Parts: sequence; C-alpha cells; structure tokens
Amino acid sequence: MDILIRIKRVLEAALSRSDQPDGPPLLAEAVRHAVFPGGARVRPRLCLSVALACGADARAAAIAEVAGAAIELLHCASLVHDDLPCFDNAPTRRGLPSVHRAFGEPLAVLAGDALIVLAFETLALGIKRPALLAPLTALVARAAGSPHGLVAGQAWECESQVVLETYQRAKTASLFACATQAGAIAAGADPAQWRALGDCLGEAYQVADDINDSVGDAAMLGKPCGQDLALGRPSAVLRHGLDGAHDHLDRLVAASVASIPDCPGASLLTALIRRELRRLLLPAVAASQAA
Amino acid sequence: MDILIRIKRVLEAALSRSDQPDGPPLLAEAVRHAVFPGGARVRPRLCLSVALACGADARAAAIAEVAGAAIELLHCASLVHDDLPCFDNAPTRRGLPSVHRAFGEPLAVLAGDALIVLAFETLALGIKRPALLAPLTALVARAAGSPHGLVAGQAWECESQVVLETYQRAKTASLFACATQAGAIAAGADPAQWRALGDCLGEAYQVADDINDSVGDAAMLGKPCGQDLALGRPSAVLRHGLDGAHDHLDRLVAASVASIPDCPGASLLTALIRRELRRLLLPAVAASQAA
Repeated sequence: MDILIRIKRVLEAALSRSDQPDGPPLLAEAVRHAVFPGGARVRPRLCLSVALACGADARAAAIAEVAGAAIELLHCASLVHDDLPCFDNAPTRRGLPSVHRAFGEPLAVLAGDALIVLAFETLALGIKRPALLAPLTALVARAAGSPHGLVAGQAWECESQVVLETYQRAKTASLFACATQAGAIAAGADPAQWRALGDCLGEAYQVADDINDSVGDAAMLGKPCGQDLALGRPSAVLRHGLDGAHDHLDRLVAASVASIPDCPGASLLTALIRRELRRLLLPAVAASQAA
Repeated sequence: MDILIRIKRVLEAALSRSDQPDGPPLLAEAVRHAVFPGGARVRPRLCLSVALACGADARAAAIAEVAGAAIELLHCASLVHDDLPCFDNAPTRRGLPSVHRAFGEPLAVLAGDALIVLAFETLALGIKRPALLAPLTALVARAAGSPHGLVAGQAWECESQVVLETYQRAKTASLFACATQAGAIAAGADPAQWRALGDCLGEAYQVADDINDSVGDAAMLGKPCGQDLALGRPSAVLRHGLDGAHDHLDRLVAASVASIPDCPGASLLTALIRRELRRLLLPAVAASQAA
C-alpha cells in the first residue's frame, strides 16, 4: 500500500477517537481542520521510509506508522499554535483559513492542546510492543518539548539572544531527527546511527522554507510569505543571502545522503530523499520562473 | 516521608529536565512559575493516597507518585491556558501574576504546551514497569484530551449548548477519576472499582469551587472571584442557588466516602477525604464569617 495512504489511515483512526458524538463538536471540527487535508506528511513518510529501509517487517512497519502519526499530530499542533495572533497571526495555512481564523482563538489553543495529548495517546494505544513504548514516547517527547524540542524552538523567538542553529535545530530538525530515530527503533535498528540523517534533513527543510519565504509565492505555498523579515525572525536567507542559502542547502542535501547508514534499502531511500528535496524548492523555482 | 514532599520531589525532577542551560531560559522560567509554589496538589495526593490505601509497596508507590506528578503537570498546563486573555484573562493565580501576565502571552501558550509534553515524558521515563506504561499513559491521555477530558471540558465553554454535568465531568472530574484509577493501577488493584470515588470527588471540588467563586474572597483564593457569573459560565450556584449547591456538595461528600472499595487503608483514606473536603470550603466559610 502507498505510504501516504497508510499514514492517512493511522491519522484517521487517531482523529476518530477524538471525534465522538458526546464530545464538544467544534473542538472535534477544529482538530480535524488542523490535520486534514494536511501537507506532504514529510515526517511520518520519513519515519516509515527509514523503518522500511532498515528491513522492517509488517509488525515493525505498523509501529513506525504509529510513531510517524504521533509526530505528524505534534507537527500539526505546532502549526496551529504558531499561527495564533500572539505569534505569526497567520490568516491562512495550507491554502485554507488558519484554525484560529476558522474557529476563533480559544478553540485554536484547545485544538493544539488536544493534538499534543492525542499524539501520546496514539503511541500508548498503537505501539503493540510494550518494550518499545517507553523509548519511543521519551524520544517523541524530547523532540516536542523543552529544552531542545519543537516548543523550545518556538520559545527561542521570545528571547533577545538566539543562535540561529540552536533555534532551527529545536524548531525544525528535532522532529525530523525524531522521525528517523523512531523509524530505526521500530525496525530494531540503532537509532543513534540515524540521527544525523534527521538533523541534516531538518536543517535542509528549514533552509528551503527560508528560501521559499523570501522569494516564493503565497498562493503556491498556501501561507503568507516574507514573514521572517516582517517578524524579525532568524532566517538562513537573512544571514547568508539568497545565493549563500542555496549553497548551504546543496551542502545539506549531500550531507543527508552521505549520512545514510548501511542498510537493506539504502539506495531506495537515497533516491527518495533526493526527489523529496527537489520538490521542496518548487515554490521558489516557480517564483523565479514567473519573475 | 510526607506525601506532599514526595510529590514535590517528583515534580522538581520533571522540571529539572526541562530547565537546562542550553534551552530557552524564559520558557523554563515560565514553566517553573506555572508549577511552583503550586496549590494543594490535590490530584497527585489523591493518586498516591489511593495507591497506599490499596496496600502499595515502595515500588508501586513510586509509580503512583510519577502518575500523580504527570496529572499535576497537566492540571498546571490547563490553568495556564485557561488564564489566557482569550479565555478568562485572569491577572492572578495562586496569589501571583498569571503566567501570561508575568511572561507574556506567547510564553504562556508555550509553557502550557511544554507542560503537556512534560507530563507524558515524565510517565515514559518514570514508570519502571513496562506493562503499566501503556494503560497509565492511555488513562492520563483520555483524562486530559478530547472528547471527554480536560481540554474537551474547556472546549464546552465555546459551545452554545452545554449540559452542566457533561462540562464539569470533563473539565474537573476527569483528572480526579484519572488520579484514583492511576493509583489503583500502580498498586495492582482494579481501576474500575476506583472510578466512582474520582468522579464524586471531582464533582465535589467543582461545586465547592463554584461556591467559593460566588461568595469567596479573591485575596484568600489567590484568583479572581465572581468569574462564572461575569463570563456566563455554567455553575452549580447559578443552577441550584447557594443553599442548593451546599446540599449537593453534602450529598457528594457522602457518596465519595460510600464509594471507597474494600481495601487495607479504607478507614485512613475516608478520614483524609473528609478532612480535605472541609478544607475546600474554607474560603467560603471565611467570607461568611467576615460578612
């Protein structure tokens, strides 16, 4: 079965638990709006792809799907909260109204909260090997929380002194490194060997995002552009210039591919990562062709 | 060792993981502000008391402490988010500035998020019996999230049609029922037998809170009074009148005590619960004596 369909199925199962006739209906709608139709599902695809590259059997792949879904739910939660008026005040996300624009600020705060809880509930109910639940939950929590995870990354925006690498590693790379390591754990491989790939890919995604934010097109991205400059946020383009950011991205792509450990599906995974990273810059390419 | 000291120790250990020199310092401060000095720690005390009443040995009691700490972290997270300008806009909490007043709205949103993540990280790292991690995590997540937990309870405030019992069961009783059941699971007892106690105590706390909100004193409560009326929130006092709310509370106290299952520490637990419920109404008693 196609990887994207497998991931969608696990996310649907998670949301159906939250969406019950005797629960508050607007919250369930807001949670669904935050998760579907969704973006490229990069993190769960990465998690499952790493597990399969490590030779995961059906049972191990199912664990990687669950871990990937939990990671995606945390990613969706962070988008909902990052879009809030007190942060980016973004009117749109993935081409649709942001959650707080569609449902109001209270339900946007609560939808993010519900998604964080749902991520951990998904792990607890879906990881059918008890010995793997503690390491996977601890890994996901570390990548999501404070002091080095997603929430900490967002919190660096509230500090006057920020090191760009520290900020981006927490805000973006943390969930990518979590995805590769979770895939390895699910398949019984050594997660430490897979961390570098996640770190590199996460940084590459952040740099590509900065390039798209700087030269891309809001309609194509489905969210506002020029936000880094407008909000005074650290950005690879602001720091290195546009050409410098492109050079940095090329180096990160090479480092990502070079970091893939020896495993049964290494060449397939390499091809997939190269294709994915080309796709990433499509908004910037389209904008440069239109200019 | 005193129960309150044991709980404080587990909470301190959890916070020390979030508070690292290379993390964002303001977030760590905001998280600490949300958890310490703290309130009466009713939920974790209840969790540990139930485990001890069930005859928990040292290892089982340690698991109940960890589960209780996770429940308290979720409670603290909900207070931070409930106090936000888009909900109660409360200037104070526990006699100190609310988190968003002390650190700003962005850090208040993030502190709540970090606390939710930390709750589940605390379970994953602290529950040393792998077979208990999945049921305890699922129990805590169900009590915290959607459709029947704490987040869902808050979300009922965004709905036009609300049944008071449904709202209060989700917003308050859910974490109490979680605390009693988690204590039972930690001690190897049947959690289903302990749910009624949590439900009754949770409802009793909510009714006492409504009474205090209606007649209490802001300085003594450490938070604003008269909020239910001002914000048009469902309340037992608004529904039953003040005398009716007191009668209802008396019935809930009796039902709580009657629901305690047969166990080694039943009489000690009964005494503890009676004492605790008397303590609850102190603000209202003080206000009536001052009047």
